[in-house]
Amino acid sequence: MNGRKPIKEPPMNNNVVAVIGCGLIGQSWSALFACYGYDVKAWDPAPNWVPEFQAAVDKAREQVRALHGGSNAEGTITAASSLEEAVGCAFWIQENAPESVPLKIDLYSRIEAAAKPETVIASSTSSLTWSELSTHFSHRDRFVTAHPFNPPHLMPLVELYAPDASTRLRAEGFYNGLERKAVVLSQDAVGHIANRLASALWREAVNIVDQGIADVSAVDTALVHGPGLRWSVVGAHMAYHLGGGAGGIEHYLKHLGPSQERRWSTLGNPKLTPELCRRIVDGVMEEAAGQSVSELEASRDAGLMRALAARAGGRS
Amino acid sequence: MNGRKPIKEPPMNNNVVAVIGCGLIGQSWSALFACYGYDVKAWDPAPNWVPEFQAAVDKAREQVRALHGGSNAEGTITAASSLEEAVGCAFWIQENAPESVPLKIDLYSRIEAAAKPETVIASSTSSLTWSELSTHFSHRDRFVTAHPFNPPHLMPLVELYAPDASTRLRAEGFYNGLERKAVVLSQDAVGHIANRLASALWREAVNIVDQGIADVSAVDTALVHGPGLRWSVVGAHMAYHLGGGAGGIEHYLKHLGPSQERRWSTLGNPKLTPELCRRIVDGVMEEAAGQSVSELEASRDAGLMRALAARAGGRS
Repeated sequence: MNGRKPIKEPPMNNNVVAVIGCGLIGQSWSALFACYGYDVKAWDPAPNWVPEFQAAVDKAREQVRALHGGSNAEGTITAASSLEEAVGCAFWIQENAPESVPLKIDLYSRIEAAAKPETVIASSTSSLTWSELSTHFSHRDRFVTAHPFNPPHLMPLVELYAPDASTRLRAEGFYNGLERKAVVLSQDAVGHIANRLASALWREAVNIVDQGIADVSAVDTALVHGPGLRWSVVGAHMAYHLGGGAGGIEHYLKHLGPSQERRWSTLGNPKLTPELCRRIVDGVMEEAAGQSVSELEASRDAGLMRALAARAGGRS
Repeated sequence: MNGRKPIKEPPMNNNVVAVIGCGLIGQSWSALFACYGYDVKAWDPAPNWVPEFQAAVDKAREQVRALHGGSNAEGTITAASSLEEAVGCAFWIQENAPESVPLKIDLYSRIEAAAKPETVIASSTSSLTWSELSTHFSHRDRFVTAHPFNPPHLMPLVELYAPDASTRLRAEGFYNGLERKAVVLSQDAVGHIANRLASALWREAVNIVDQGIADVSAVDTALVHGPGLRWSVVGAHMAYHLGGGAGGIEHYLKHLGPSQERRWSTLGNPKLTPELCRRIVDGVMEEAAGQSVSELEASRDAGLMRALAARAGGRS
């Protein structure tokens, strides 16, 4: 990594990013920001949150360094003793509080009172919308939803929604400057893009288990070695373009559109009954084959790092 | 590649695989079979099919060699002058005819008349089922649906369904011996697993475009850099296990199951109207940015090869 990339809008007269809420997502963001040269002021309301945060951030920073190479230009990470201290000197604020509208709205009023007026306030919310969260802002133009995909220090995607064009541009510049892939929504939507797609796929994955077509681990194996692998290279629309032969998507829609619509009508709409949940839990336990969540996470991260390194190789 | 891997059931007294139907899928299978040491007898009813077949097979063989290293033990590929000649001496038959039940049933009766009784007859069908296709067999025990994911010489997934346990075992051994990932369905199903998942995801991808939430290329970019990348490493069920914190999938289902069910109810069910099809076609053309289908295919294949090489690196 050769330090942080230039961003489209110049940063303010400082280099400080505030991270508000330091669970899984806040830890991961903090590591990424610091590796790309920003000084991070982190704050969380939980008692004694710092040791666990510090350990997680150290591990994540090692992963970012392994992927992109080290740098002398890394920033610092410090634990602030109050929200006000964290945001006061920041030019960017990344909020990662629990998914509760009143809780976040309360945080934003404290943030607005303490932050400089030019500071962008970004929310990592995965399930709430800009419209729900922006109702009580004094200056909502500077608010953006910036939803990362877990874990943000490895996954490139950041989904953005902000009605204000200048805030949107600043957000694109900021996240792309961290070598993320910023994707801008045209319209505010629950679940943004990625979680809507993930939810639609999982509904059918659960249906396949419910109907007895295949068990949990067969479904996951098919996904990883089939569509998942392909979608890590080409998107869903593009995949059908390439499945349409020389006539591409136009040919595909004309000849196979009706059969897709028929298939859509056969997809399931399962209910997560206690019995079905039990089968899913048992299936996942069988697939985990005795590995703990943190062992599985380590193996996922290693797989993601290999996949990302392979992509980087392809670009050069 | 150190020649073909041992298969669980011993092959017959010869090494010949017949490939019936030599379009995209048949070409790709032929290349894979030959690279793993089998002698391929290929047949297609189209006039003058051989030159295009030969060119495609040569290109695919180069890709398999680049991925797995060359071998002195590669098999030969010859064009048979009749279906009967192709299947007569084969121990394995891979049928890749168009997706028409009467057409395939007619082929199977000719295949059964000419093939040895112990030969397995495998169909690459993506949208038809074992139950539909097996109605007219004299000996349907030896029939298996073996659906690859395009392109089969690169994509590991092969989805299998056969009620007969011995045929199922032979099929698992055969495809895993080609370093594929054979996934066995418990129940015959339209779209097997992978195309059901792909169809469910695409329905929502189309809905997102239809609703104006994001355009075609934003949806594809979000997928490739978000859920697609993650699903190339961990399956959908496992991803929620890791999203549940230390409590895993059990915690996830208990706390977030109801919100998933609510989200399922907000997913769309678009109609592929001419107007929507036009927007999808225009969006894909914009995403393609002037690249032809074959250029995009080459770029997809290069991406897949990088991803597969990265996986192989992780295993060693």
